[in-house]
Amino acid sequence: MDSVGSNPQPAHDVAAATVSVCPAGERFPLPQAPEYERELDRLRALAAEQRALGREIVVVMGVGFVGAIMAGVVADSTDRRTGKPGKFVMAMQRPSARSFWKIPYLNRGVAPVQAEDPEVAPMIRRTVLEKRTLTATFTYDALSLADVVVVDVQCDYVKDALGDLRHGHADIAALEESFTVIGERIQPRCLVLIETTVPPGTTEHIAYPVLKRAFSERGLTAEPLLAHSYERVMPGRHYVASVRDFWRVCSGVSEAARQRVVAFLSDVLNVGQYPLTVLDRPIESETCKVIENSYRAAILAFMDEWSLFAERNGIDLMKLIQAIKVRPTHTNILFPGPGIGGYCLPKDGALGLWAYRHLLGFEEEQLPITTAAINVNDTRGLHVADLACEALEGMGRPVADAPILVCGASYREDVGDTRYSGSELIVRRLVELGADVRVHDPYLEHWYELESQEEYPAKGQSRSRFFRKQEGVTRIRVQRDLPSALRGVQAVILAVRHAPYLSLDPDWLVRQAGAPLALIDCFGLLSDDAIRRCFELGCEVRCLGRGHVQRLKEAVGGRRPRPAAE
Amino acid sequence: MDSVGSNPQPAHDVAAATVSVCPAGERFPLPQAPEYERELDRLRALAAEQRALGREIVVVMGVGFVGAIMAGVVADSTDRRTGKPGKFVMAMQRPSARSFWKIPYLNRGVAPVQAEDPEVAPMIRRTVLEKRTLTATFTYDALSLADVVVVDVQCDYVKDALGDLRHGHADIAALEESFTVIGERIQPRCLVLIETTVPPGTTEHIAYPVLKRAFSERGLTAEPLLAHSYERVMPGRHYVASVRDFWRVCSGVSEAARQRVVAFLSDVLNVGQYPLTVLDRPIESETCKVIENSYRAAILAFMDEWSLFAERNGIDLMKLIQAIKVRPTHTNILFPGPGIGGYCLPKDGALGLWAYRHLLGFEEEQLPITTAAINVNDTRGLHVADLACEALEGMGRPVADAPILVCGASYREDVGDTRYSGSELIVRRLVELGADVRVHDPYLEHWYELESQEEYPAKGQSRSRFFRKQEGVTRIRVQRDLPSALRGVQAVILAVRHAPYLSLDPDWLVRQAGAPLALIDCFGLLSDDAIRRCFELGCEVRCLGRGHVQRLKEAVGGRRPRPAAE
Repeated sequence: MDSVGSNPQPAHDVAAATVSVCPAGERFPLPQAPEYERELDRLRALAAEQRALGREIVVVMGVGFVGAIMAGVVADSTDRRTGKPGKFVMAMQRPSARSFWKIPYLNRGVAPVQAEDPEVAPMIRRTVLEKRTLTATFTYDALSLADVVVVDVQCDYVKDALGDLRHGHADIAALEESFTVIGERIQPRCLVLIETTVPPGTTEHIAYPVLKRAFSERGLTAEPLLAHSYERVMPGRHYVASVRDFWRVCSGVSEAARQRVVAFLSDVLNVGQYPLTVLDRPIESETCKVIENSYRAAILAFMDEWSLFAERNGIDLMKLIQAIKVRPTHTNILFPGPGIGGYCLPKDGALGLWAYRHLLGFEEEQLPITTAAINVNDTRGLHVADLACEALEGMGRPVADAPILVCGASYREDVGDTRYSGSELIVRRLVELGADVRVHDPYLEHWYELESQEEYPAKGQSRSRFFRKQEGVTRIRVQRDLPSALRGVQAVILAVRHAPYLSLDPDWLVRQAGAPLALIDCFGLLSDDAIRRCFELGCEVRCLGRGHVQRLKEAVGGRRPRPAAE
Repeated sequence: MDSVGSNPQPAHDVAAATVSVCPAGERFPLPQAPEYERELDRLRALAAEQRALGREIVVVMGVGFVGAIMAGVVADSTDRRTGKPGKFVMAMQRPSARSFWKIPYLNRGVAPVQAEDPEVAPMIRRTVLEKRTLTATFTYDALSLADVVVVDVQCDYVKDALGDLRHGHADIAALEESFTVIGERIQPRCLVLIETTVPPGTTEHIAYPVLKRAFSERGLTAEPLLAHSYERVMPGRHYVASVRDFWRVCSGVSEAARQRVVAFLSDVLNVGQYPLTVLDRPIESETCKVIENSYRAAILAFMDEWSLFAERNGIDLMKLIQAIKVRPTHTNILFPGPGIGGYCLPKDGALGLWAYRHLLGFEEEQLPITTAAINVNDTRGLHVADLACEALEGMGRPVADAPILVCGASYREDVGDTRYSGSELIVRRLVELGADVRVHDPYLEHWYELESQEEYPAKGQSRSRFFRKQEGVTRIRVQRDLPSALRGVQAVILAVRHAPYLSLDPDWLVRQAGAPLALIDCFGLLSDDAIRRCFELGCEVRCLGRGHVQRLKEAVGGRRPRPAAE
């Protein structure tokens, strides 16, 4: 999802900005006033042509992680009877310096999102260049041509403190702005489908009155056809399938809206194999999404406390999880890792909290576990930094100025997605403590959250403000060559379960680093044998949630360190 | 499991008591001093005879929910090579007034536990009377004959306050007493397998030193062969299978103990289909059990807060759960019901808390979610009473003196097991508020926790002390005929998902009660159509976690109540 509204844009995005620079460095001039008219003419012509082919016009607002893929999926769908395309998609994005480049990208048939899924690039190329069912545009006026508007505008939760969710607010301004723009432009019979994860009550208490008032001002008496349906998108190898071939939940503000959303989703998604769940009211669908993600967050926070228990009491939580997972009722128990990132889990529960406060009647003490869970998950990375200090101290080295390599910047394994990753917290804390932090990640070219908050402000609320002295952070560049990243480091933190980290050889590591080092394993990547070998080599090892490490060290005992194998 | 130690026994269990009365009313005189010698002679002869057949002697201590079934399973097992029984079991129970009757019961081939599982009765009959591989005894001296001792003595957590777990303690005295008795009697090469769910650290920090010291006093230098393995027993239709045909986790204090426990469990359980997990240390196995049950408790408490959210905001949580469950990562999401009972979930997390305090270093603020979860689960029943009051008030009736029927006393559906059931809390609260409470349960003859704490103290720590004025509670008798139980009631609380409650007809209910009534549905038993019909009939309806009920009422609207169908 992406920001569309005008509210929280940084300074460089107004007046001064005239170009948008894509990640590859190409510069795209922002459109000027006369171009808007030409663009609307282009869209009108397209719409007329497509309508003549019997196709519905679908405007997808927001070309971010969800919108870009949803636009492709809708454009790629076919009419069940004719087997031919039944929708024409206009993917719409306000022309900000930060993201205007996505529009020309899309119109060249190039996906504006990085993806490990091999389906993404061909789908965008196919729909734009071959099927010609997808175009991208920068003008809100596209809305006036729509039969369906799909809203994929983001709604963040801004946290004012680290680990204290009750201080913060839902950043709903961009979304409200979108509703206004929609209300001002759409045809009264247009279906407005909100896909954004929103505070429960948003569709009925925010979107509905905004649209209704906008309609009134235009002299329209029609009831807005508003619906909510949430995606369950998952970055990675099955990114497209997670949008298209997965169960959906939907609802509408009225029977008419409900029928429209059911019909639309049935046209574009694989509802045969993954049947729709239709709920009575949008607040049910909105809450459903918040619950399912909070569920996951709560499970992880619960495991965090047992991870600490394990660490302190000689227990290997990894082995316990394997033992527990065999139970059919416990298959989803999982290791919490160094932090719970991604776009959804760190915030969705907070949207429930905010809804209680602003839409559903102020009740401060509600959702205690949901709230505690996010607080725990948001701060777990700090504990990893503690372990790194402890391990370095065990080797007689201070953390201050120590060269430390953090392996893995993503929030989950084998994707290049750094949103709210646990690693960010580890890096920021270690920098605060004076360490010389380096980062390796085989799936990333840039770690936007660190490199420049100026340039990429909406990639995530910056967490730099929770830390002292973060100048060093912006200078960090992600390295992709592990041997050179390792050279001379005194500590390595294995922070993500990326495939290349799964079977690291202790001897090799020590050889690359040039000397025994402190190893912090956040994900049970080191086997017991590997850990023993690390100790033999004179390394110090700490493992998140694995207290048996000290026992392994004692077993290696007083033996003198053996030299690393050549 | 069952109490064995001498500590927390009620007054009637000493001096004065000479008989033990079984649930059916038969009286069994407690054994007197001379009988102990005769009993030991009997056991010695049996042991010699059985050893001659090449069988190991297994003493199972505690003939409660786990011990009785474990004794049967071991006695029923066969040697993999010969196909013949390889174990002879002595099921041991200290002769208290409360439970001595279980010994003669067993020796007649009758199971001392009520069970819905059709395997239980034949297994006990077969092993005692046909295979003759199981006998029951009241003397600790059986321990001296054992090759293996399986400890199934209970370890409760006593709560000093309702909804505040930090005030309480693990009631570990009986277990400690058992360890002493074992240390004084067993042969040094006897394997002691603790199956009880215990505070993590118990095997190493409590059992081991007790046995070691007892050995020393006997002049033995051997290392006690101590192991821990927990069951995952589940009352109901698959009670025996839940002990025998399910994954097990085990561990030993030493390599020798580990080998012994692996060999023993491999002999008696279905480890081919359900492989053993062998962990390094008993604290890992002990913690594993506590985590897996706390996991479930935490999930339920998490859902409790969203259930309240749903109730207050017009949301039907039942439908949301159906929508969420389709996700493979969320299949175990579940509705919390009116309380989380059973022997394990309300206490296991507390054992972790207690271990932190007494065995693993005092750290007061640990395990916050685990702790909060039990507190939430322990008090959820109170909210059901609130709903009942609300519904009665909606009909212009005070709760005081109102005849209210609670349908379902068990802690889960289709079993007759009332341990820590949510219904108990509902009943106690309503009695406190002056209601005239009746109870129906098709699976129960007695609700021991209510009927007499004097007679059945160890069926569960009484929760009566958390409530005002509980005299009325002891007079409550469980009724098994629903129509007569319904006669004249003003409110019905559907508290358990027992099969007979799954499709109750509103017209029938009102007819039986004689007038429109307040209906409180704690488990989504009433369909939307049924709820609408209830409103049409002039009933008031409240549903746990289902806020859409008010919407259904409004839909029925101002329509005058229609008379119940004849």
